[in-house]
Amino acid sequence: MTDHSPSGQDVDVVVVGGGLSGLTAAYQIHRKDPSLRVVVLEAKDRVGGRTLTVELDNGNGTDTWDLGGQWVGRCQPHITKLLAELGLDTYPQYIQGRKFMQLGGDVVTSYTSDIPSLSGLALIDLQRTINRVERLSKMVDARDPYNCQCSKFDAELDGMSLDSFMRKHMWTKSAKECIDAANRTILGVEASQVSVLFYLMYVSAAGGIRPLVEASENTGQESKIIDDNSVHVTCKNGVCVTAKRVVIATPPQLTGKIIFSPPLPTEKQQMMKRMPMGDIIKVIITYREVFWRSAGQSGEVVTDGGPTHVSGCERGPLCVVYDNTSYRGSPALLAFIGGKAAIQWRNQQALERKSAVLKSLSEFFGHKVWSYVDYIEKDWGQEPYSEGAPTSSAAPGTMAYLVKGLRHPYMKLHFAGTESATVWCGFMNGAVQAGLRAANEVLYHLRPQIVSAAELLDTVYGPSTQNRPASMSRRPNKAFKWTVGLVFIVGEAAVLTNLSHGVVGALFVQVMVVHL
Amino acid sequence: MTDHSPSGQDVDVVVVGGGLSGLTAAYQIHRKDPSLRVVVLEAKDRVGGRTLTVELDNGNGTDTWDLGGQWVGRCQPHITKLLAELGLDTYPQYIQGRKFMQLGGDVVTSYTSDIPSLSGLALIDLQRTINRVERLSKMVDARDPYNCQCSKFDAELDGMSLDSFMRKHMWTKSAKECIDAANRTILGVEASQVSVLFYLMYVSAAGGIRPLVEASENTGQESKIIDDNSVHVTCKNGVCVTAKRVVIATPPQLTGKIIFSPPLPTEKQQMMKRMPMGDIIKVIITYREVFWRSAGQSGEVVTDGGPTHVSGCERGPLCVVYDNTSYRGSPALLAFIGGKAAIQWRNQQALERKSAVLKSLSEFFGHKVWSYVDYIEKDWGQEPYSEGAPTSSAAPGTMAYLVKGLRHPYMKLHFAGTESATVWCGFMNGAVQAGLRAANEVLYHLRPQIVSAAELLDTVYGPSTQNRPASMSRRPNKAFKWTVGLVFIVGEAAVLTNLSHGVVGALFVQVMVVHL
Repeated sequence: MTDHSPSGQDVDVVVVGGGLSGLTAAYQIHRKDPSLRVVVLEAKDRVGGRTLTVELDNGNGTDTWDLGGQWVGRCQPHITKLLAELGLDTYPQYIQGRKFMQLGGDVVTSYTSDIPSLSGLALIDLQRTINRVERLSKMVDARDPYNCQCSKFDAELDGMSLDSFMRKHMWTKSAKECIDAANRTILGVEASQVSVLFYLMYVSAAGGIRPLVEASENTGQESKIIDDNSVHVTCKNGVCVTAKRVVIATPPQLTGKIIFSPPLPTEKQQMMKRMPMGDIIKVIITYREVFWRSAGQSGEVVTDGGPTHVSGCERGPLCVVYDNTSYRGSPALLAFIGGKAAIQWRNQQALERKSAVLKSLSEFFGHKVWSYVDYIEKDWGQEPYSEGAPTSSAAPGTMAYLVKGLRHPYMKLHFAGTESATVWCGFMNGAVQAGLRAANEVLYHLRPQIVSAAELLDTVYGPSTQNRPASMSRRPNKAFKWTVGLVFIVGEAAVLTNLSHGVVGALFVQVMVVHL
Repeated sequence: MTDHSPSGQDVDVVVVGGGLSGLTAAYQIHRKDPSLRVVVLEAKDRVGGRTLTVELDNGNGTDTWDLGGQWVGRCQPHITKLLAELGLDTYPQYIQGRKFMQLGGDVVTSYTSDIPSLSGLALIDLQRTINRVERLSKMVDARDPYNCQCSKFDAELDGMSLDSFMRKHMWTKSAKECIDAANRTILGVEASQVSVLFYLMYVSAAGGIRPLVEASENTGQESKIIDDNSVHVTCKNGVCVTAKRVVIATPPQLTGKIIFSPPLPTEKQQMMKRMPMGDIIKVIITYREVFWRSAGQSGEVVTDGGPTHVSGCERGPLCVVYDNTSYRGSPALLAFIGGKAAIQWRNQQALERKSAVLKSLSEFFGHKVWSYVDYIEKDWGQEPYSEGAPTSSAAPGTMAYLVKGLRHPYMKLHFAGTESATVWCGFMNGAVQAGLRAANEVLYHLRPQIVSAAELLDTVYGPSTQNRPASMSRRPNKAFKWTVGLVFIVGEAAVLTNLSHGVVGALFVQVMVVHL
């Protein structure tokens, strides 16, 4: 499926990006027709994208934990099917016991049901806001969110930040803070930075706000002129691959660092400019015992960080905490530092941040939190070739460009990545769905006989005209003009020393695409 | 001041980016002390950034017009002073005669005063909104916009799009459309895509909404470990410069395409992610006679584009039109296609777009518009190493990072560019102010005896503690830790063929900075 020294190779498909989406695309193409030669190019020294498994000391040897995406749900069809195909099992998240909530007033409250410990008015406010968001989200087709049934409001909803929406429609600060806290972990951004229409699409793609929040744990989170009919990918390190089709499986912000000549269509440029990655720091702390469970606590905390005296930080670091005891039973807590907190706490010394995390945890779980075995932080905002996590969010006023910008193919380029998904976009499920969809698009061109109509349903080659790119359904002259043009892609510079320990062995640096 | 073959040179200052701001920084440093060796690196095959002068046929030979920034005003101190120093004259914009306005209802109205042809209610609405914005903007210190006197609202104003703000506070559609039309030209974005607090800062930096709108015509870019105390700049084409200080004079979006290792501070990363360039197409059309003037028309039009039958475009292309007759008297009209219109009309065939522009102009100025001599368009969104114009705008929720993110120095890097200015930021004046400020910062380090306290007033070395970066006033340990670190900058890849026709001759591709 991949080649460890693809220099000068001539293949059928190049996949740019070895995250879940790119790997799924390569897997799907290979599985459908093993005779198709596929090369995956990855700039990091590992595959997996925003997923990353590490070993930690559990006090009695080591066990493994995920510093990136870790949760899946049965409500997520694509990842569930892939896991089944690969014969991979799952185990449930621990949710018994008392949960904590700390918002605004710095008061810690605890509760055992699914209902947060808010005042009666705040609870009603939260429920009616959830109802309003779900009702609106049902009118938003995740496949074409800008042209929704609430179309007379789509421009207004797209031009409004989620923060403005909540200030307009919500009565209580604490209910709003509840949604704020969830979003810092789900999207890694502040509500002020996200388009309402994007949020509604995200909720729609997850089938509702409840599945989304209950699955908030699911944070999945270069060319020269030639005279043939193929795509040329040339990396800065000299690796050179010729292919019939290319799958770009990088997040919009990183796709924006690849130089395309002629440039990508204006809608794709808009998404690269206006859909930046969120900021999140994932913290895993191992313990010798699951002391919180014995105290009747679930390990779950929802907090706006609580007060802090650390200069440069408005609030404490934490957003959400969960029990993260491993499948083998190694006790651990998981904490997220998301959105503004991630940005502010990233600036602090590692020791100061760690101390603040433990201090905050101790307010909920007592002094035992200080007796940890191992402590690890993964700041995804500092990760090269990811530049953030858990996902990318559209700024207000950007949604009109999303479908063509993220999902539609252009010339011989196909676009994957969880951001381009319609079912659980932003999550591991979305990465898989987008990878499958891009693979099916490629197969439609290279092996039309082996892709079924059903497999083309969510592609631009499906029966729905709304998914058909403008260049296919009209303006044939222009489409023709473009196909006799050239595409140059200058990929992201990779540090050359990575060559020595490359996993895929083909750093993408310079990718060349020619279509004549 | 610049060197045409700086390969392997050892200089005092490298300026990355040969736009107005970078060139002003180099000019200021050179003027202050000609013994300082300064190299300007530019990725394009020309200097000038978002300013560009071209020759057009005027029907009787040729004359020159500006496809980029062209207007200046006496209310803009820095550019005015620079022009005087350079002995450059200006001439007034033609404003006599009837002006046109076409908003929403597709009806063309005309007026001769400064007061737009709106209904009585809409006029009152427009005036009270201008008053509200000016009153709020006076509370916003352009030097530190996030900590304004309306501080209890700054987060809310930053988290709100200008579109939401107008929908909340304005009564009439036509008055709102008036502001929308102005913003498409001033910022090149839709009101839905801009933070209210950013807009207030922009108004504040221009001294009010009237000067801004009346001056809306003023739409004015690697390393290895070494053991000395200097900055190493290495371009992909092999050009290599060693310097004591570097000025980065590129817009945030392009600075984001330079790889810094270790990465730039998180605030600078946020601005690179969340302050994209606007989209604007500038159209200049020359004529044999100034027929509009003889018809008693000023040449000025404010329009939301009017109706169109072109598929993929919601409205006609135009936003604002002006008389653009040259100093030598060659008749011309100037039209702007900005924001969403630029994005949608960019997708059309050149001939179709040209036809729509002329058709729309004919609705105001009659059939004579079709008898043009020369016609030229400059789509700044398609310009490499600019990626848009006229300026960059902060998305909602980004303003907290603006001061540190755009203006503060980091290690031996200093940051210019009009986006980082506090007086007429976004305009040519801002480019000059920022260039001067960055030059003074560099001189503070290299020639402290020749910079006055007054020249340091708007730098982090001035007396105001609010401008002092955190690393200088506190956390000395961390600041020390960083100074023993390394900075790697991998610059934007330049097309190698540019080498043959380089103006500055030093394409920045790979820039290396080391600070020990």
